[in-house]
This record gives sequence, structure tokens and C-alpha cells, in this order.
Amino acid sequence: MREVAIVGAGMTNFGELWNSSLRALFAEAALEAITTTGVDHLDSIYIGNMSAGCFVGQEHIGPLMADQIGMAGVPATRVESACASGGAALRAAYFEVASGASDLVMAAGVEKMNDGADATDVLATASDQELEAYHGITFPGLYAMIARAHMAAYGTTEEDLSWVSVKNHQHGALNPKAQFRNKFTLEQVMGSSLVAEPLRLLHCSPVSDGAGAVILCPLDQAKKYTDKPVRIAASAQATSAMALADRRDPAFLDAVQLTAERAYKQAGIGPRDIDLAEVHDCFAIAEICCIEALGFFDKGKANKAAENGLTALGGQIPVNTSGGLKSKGHPVGATGIAQAIEVFEQLRGESGDRQVKDARYGLTQNMGGSGASSVIHILERN
Amino acid sequence: MREVAIVGAGMTNFGELWNSSLRALFAEAALEAITTTGVDHLDSIYIGNMSAGCFVGQEHIGPLMADQIGMAGVPATRVESACASGGAALRAAYFEVASGASDLVMAAGVEKMNDGADATDVLATASDQELEAYHGITFPGLYAMIARAHMAAYGTTEEDLSWVSVKNHQHGALNPKAQFRNKFTLEQVMGSSLVAEPLRLLHCSPVSDGAGAVILCPLDQAKKYTDKPVRIAASAQATSAMALADRRDPAFLDAVQLTAERAYKQAGIGPRDIDLAEVHDCFAIAEICCIEALGFFDKGKANKAAENGLTALGGQIPVNTSGGLKSKGHPVGATGIAQAIEVFEQLRGESGDRQVKDARYGLTQNMGGSGASSVIHILERN
Repeated sequence: MREVAIVGAGMTNFGELWNSSLRALFAEAALEAITTTGVDHLDSIYIGNMSAGCFVGQEHIGPLMADQIGMAGVPATRVESACASGGAALRAAYFEVASGASDLVMAAGVEKMNDGADATDVLATASDQELEAYHGITFPGLYAMIARAHMAAYGTTEEDLSWVSVKNHQHGALNPKAQFRNKFTLEQVMGSSLVAEPLRLLHCSPVSDGAGAVILCPLDQAKKYTDKPVRIAASAQATSAMALADRRDPAFLDAVQLTAERAYKQAGIGPRDIDLAEVHDCFAIAEICCIEALGFFDKGKANKAAENGLTALGGQIPVNTSGGLKSKGHPVGATGIAQAIEVFEQLRGESGDRQVKDARYGLTQNMGGSGASSVIHILERN
Repeated sequence: MREVAIVGAGMTNFGELWNSSLRALFAEAALEAITTTGVDHLDSIYIGNMSAGCFVGQEHIGPLMADQIGMAGVPATRVESACASGGAALRAAYFEVASGASDLVMAAGVEKMNDGADATDVLATASDQELEAYHGITFPGLYAMIARAHMAAYGTTEEDLSWVSVKNHQHGALNPKAQFRNKFTLEQVMGSSLVAEPLRLLHCSPVSDGAGAVILCPLDQAKKYTDKPVRIAASAQATSAMALADRRDPAFLDAVQLTAERAYKQAGIGPRDIDLAEVHDCFAIAEICCIEALGFFDKGKANKAAENGLTALGGQIPVNTSGGLKSKGHPVGATGIAQAIEVFEQLRGESGDRQVKDARYGLTQNMGGSGASSVIHILERN
């Protein structure tokens, strides 16, 4: 396998972007990646997208998007794994470059969620339709059950959940592309309205529009495009039982742990070597479960991490310096790419007020549904 | 890049399978592939599916399907390029094996179209939503315009279209898994009801349920699983303008020609070396356009091929020995895999009454929308 690097990136603001269509969002991010990297062609394009069919009546976005950026002809494929679609697209692009088949491949992600469709209904298609969605459970409900299980097993509290939101909004306030740049106090989070007990509004990531794109090439060609390439040290993926009720332990994310093991093995490092991580905090409880499954904290021991500043900028392991899904926003198919862009910029020292000093390894952890699919990339400064 | 082989396959019957769900269809095909190949694990799974979200309210089918066949844990990703989703899934699996990252990868395709959703509406999401679908055009209408353009440019007639259907039903009558095993006379096809002038009911592929799966491994490991591996001699993909009105020539499939050039180059052969081809006859006119773009016939010269027996079993280049999408059926996300299975079996001499004698090279041509995405594989007997 060839070594692969990320050499450029582009990203829209995240938010309720009523004036931007699905194709406009993609084009903005893709063209920024192309022009800032200075490439004059692409060999292939992969686009992570969860559900443009249900959100805006548009499947088949591969050729549509290639056409939209003046690249009709170039192979272009949509990759989907619910909210892990962006990570899965990055992985597909990685394989195509690693195989030797192509030298310049774009991995992008896009989602247009604010366009009239009922986002809760559409998102429910990422759960098990027959065992979960059909019976009325939605994602706030599924993650509320995960939270309850974590509370019952480890004494996790509503305050613990709330500190995750406080911390991620502190980070997001420093990110010019974040959907919500407001900081919140613990009291404000604790006082926000209940969505699915114990989860409150400010424990939940928002409904967002946005897109991101990165450009990959073989590591030994990367210096043609940038002085600061970022190596993909690992690309790993795993699944678990789809329905929450079929899991061994609903408070633990088996697929994330399995993916992390594979990623650390491929990179030849362990969780203590990671300098920063973007993790999938679709709900506050998810961040707690993820940083346990990633091995940053022992099982059941991550609930006080945010309160104690361990996962904040300057802490033991800064988590979600971008603001995370909670503050930066969560256009579901774009999220995995946005995570990679945050780490790419951090490792290049381009993150301004939220820069992590001298970071060498950064990890992105992207997951779908209630954790049934998981994709992790470890990136290394080069 | 490592050389890659297909070593096993499984496929459901195609049809209106009201008693089989999306997951049941996948499991039937996948388990047949696994058991007949004799593998005890998979490293990864790719699943081509166009629109389970719109058809049956289920996105995120990667982990769902891995779980369904007792393989929770295994990486599993859905790949979508409308009706070329199966071909795109095969290509993704090919890259993962070729890269050296994995040794045993399944490429599957599945679609459950008969389950209550309006198939015409859902299929329209494969066209350009803003420029085509929103204004009321559907796929029979788009292909009717392609047919009109071919008629105007080359004198193609309704009778020419009808001979394609007659020929494909003759083939499909020999295929135990085909949805419609009836033969039709020219008069019956010409007398069937109009759908979108000049296309009649018997010029159109049906609405189908079904699934297929193949297993890939490195060519140098293939003999562990079968005495008759089939080598993937080429995997190629291209796109063109999405909206028909944006094409240089609506009667010619640019993306298919571009893909074919890439595929022949990779395989080191030309169209005359191909012994049989499965092509994307979603409508009768599509087969005529495809076999021109593939170089089997000159531009504008394929309209009499079916009538003259050139594309029938025993002819110059047998096309759609399976019965094609018209007779075998067209569960859209499964079609690209079903094409590969037909060629796989032909090259192994397992096609019974429809066997092409001594075939060495077979080609599969799978496309999405009105031809905006195109995937071609060339397979070689080994």
C-alpha cells in the first residue's frame, strides 16, 4: 500500500443556510479545496452524504456534483453510512490512492438538512427501521437510553452531560465556521428545555447545512501541493449490532472500541500518543461514551472529564477543539470530513485561537446511528 | 496494485418478492456467496443500493446488513450511484483488495422497490432534481427523448427498439432467476401499451426486488477458494453532465464511451476481444446506445443489431445473456452485481442453456440516471 497524505481542504460555514442548495454547498467547499491546493484536475471524487434523497429528493449526487464544479467526466461516487458518511468517503478515497489506481482524489461530505423535510423523520432512517424507527423511537430517544444506561452503571449525572456542552461551546466560540458561537453557562445548559429525558436541548447537536472537502494524494507526491502535508497514519472502520437493544451493553460503544484498536494498530501508536481528537458528540452522552471507547479514559471514567478540564483546550487530551457537532453544527454527511479538516488545520498550526500546541497526532472518530457504524482516522503531522 | 479475482457469488431470484424484506434479500444472496465460496470470515463489505431510504425508510444499511448475516463488527459501507450503485460497490471492493488493506471483501447490491413507495417518484431522484424531476419529467420520459434523438439522427425505428426486447426475453427465458421468463413476439412488443412515446411497456425494465453478492480476494490467493477464479481485468468509472439537456448529444452516452476507453486501456484489449457483455438496458433504446458507446458497433449503427441476431446468443457479440434488465429484472442497486454474476458464471462455464462457448473476456456496463454515471468491469477467465 502507498502512504497517503491530505494536502488541501475547503469548508463552508455550518448553519441554517437557507440561501444555499445542496449543490451550492458542495461546490463552495470543493472549489475552495481545489483552488487553495492548486490542483488542475482530480482523478476521482467521493462524497459522503446521508440522505439527500429524503432531505431534498436528490440521489445520484456523484455525477451531479462533478458536473457542478466543471468536472463532468471524473468518476464520482456517493458513500453512505448515516452520520459516518463523511468518514466512510474519506476511507474510500484513501483506498483508491493507497491502491495506486489514482493520484489525486477528493473526499467530500455534504448535507442539506434545512429544506422542508422533517429532519427527525429522515434521521430516524439511520436506526433499525423495523425494530426501532417504525415503533416511534427517534435519535434523541435512543441517546437518552444510552445516557440512562451510563447513569445507571457509572453514576453519571445531568451535570456531567452539561459540562460537555459548556466545553464544546467554549471551543466553538473560537471557530469562525461554527453554527453556534455562543458560550453557555452550566446553568443555561441545565435549564434548557427537555428533549428526551435526561437530554435537554443544549445536549443535542443542531440540524445543519454544510459541506467540506479534502484532497488526497500519495505522500511522496505531497510536497508538490503543500509544504505541510498531513499523513493518514490509519484508516479504520467497524460495525456493531444496529439496534440498541441488540447490544451487549448499551452504555458502551463496541464498534468504536473495535475501530480504535484497528486504528492504533495500523498507526503503531496508542491512545496516549494522540494530541487532539474530534469525536462524534451528536449528543453530550456520545462524547463521554466515545472517549471511553477510544481508550482516552477507562470505561465509566470519562463522565467528569469535561468538568475537570481534561478534554478542554490546554487539557490532557483536547476533544472537539472545533466545537464538535454540538457547537460547530452537524450536517450529517459532512461531519466526518469537517472533523478531518479540523485536525488537518491543527496539525498544520492553522487553528488560530484554538490551536493545540505542537500537535503531532490527531484522531477523528465519526459514527453512524446509535453507534452501529464507526470510522476512525489518525492523522500525523509530516 | 494487487491483481484481484472474484471467487464466489450468490443471488436471489429477481421479481416482485412481496414476502422478502430488504434485509432478507441481502441475507439470502450474501449467505449463498459465503457458503458456496466456503469463506469463514470477511474483512469488509460494500453494498450497492440506490434508495432504501426513500423505498423502505432505511438508510445506514451497511451495519444493518453485516449484523443481519451474523457479521456485526465487520466494516460495511453502502455505495450509491443510482442504478450504477452495484457497479460502484464492486469497484470500491476492488480498490480495497487491490490496495493490500484487505484479503476477503464482499461486494453486494440490493434493492426492495415493491413495498408501497411510488417507484417512479423515487427513481426520479436519480435525475437532476432542480432541472428535471421538479418539472415533472420521469425516467421513461428521459429515455423517450433519448430514443427520439436516436431516431432523428440515425433513422432508428420502433421496430428496432422492439427487437431488443424480443432478444432479451429470449435470453431471459433461459434464466431461472429472471423476473419475466416469457418470450414475446415482435408484434406483442409493438402492441404493448405506450408509456412515453415512442417507448412502450415492453421496452421498459420492470420494478423489481432482488439482491446479489460476490466475494473478492487477491488473485494469488484465489485458488484457496475455487478452481475457477475470474480475474478483474479492469474497473473503470466516469460521469457526464447530469441533466440530459446539458449533454453534447442526447443520443450518445459520453460517460459510457469514456469509461469504456479507460477499461479497455486497463485490460490491454479492445471491444473486439470481448466475448459477451451485460449492458444496462433499463429501456430498449439504452441497449442500442450502450453497445455503440462500448465500441461494439459504430455510432448510429447498432439499431439493427438485435434484429440481425448480432447481439443474440450465438451472434457476433452476445449482449445480455441473462435477459438483461428488461427480462431478468432491475432491482436498481443490485443490477451491477447481477451483471457481474452473469459474466462470472459464463466465464466459468456454468450458464446452462444460455452458455457462451469458450468465453475468455466478459464486460459489465452499469449506468445511473440517464447515463450520467457509468461503471464498467472487464472480467477474464483464469
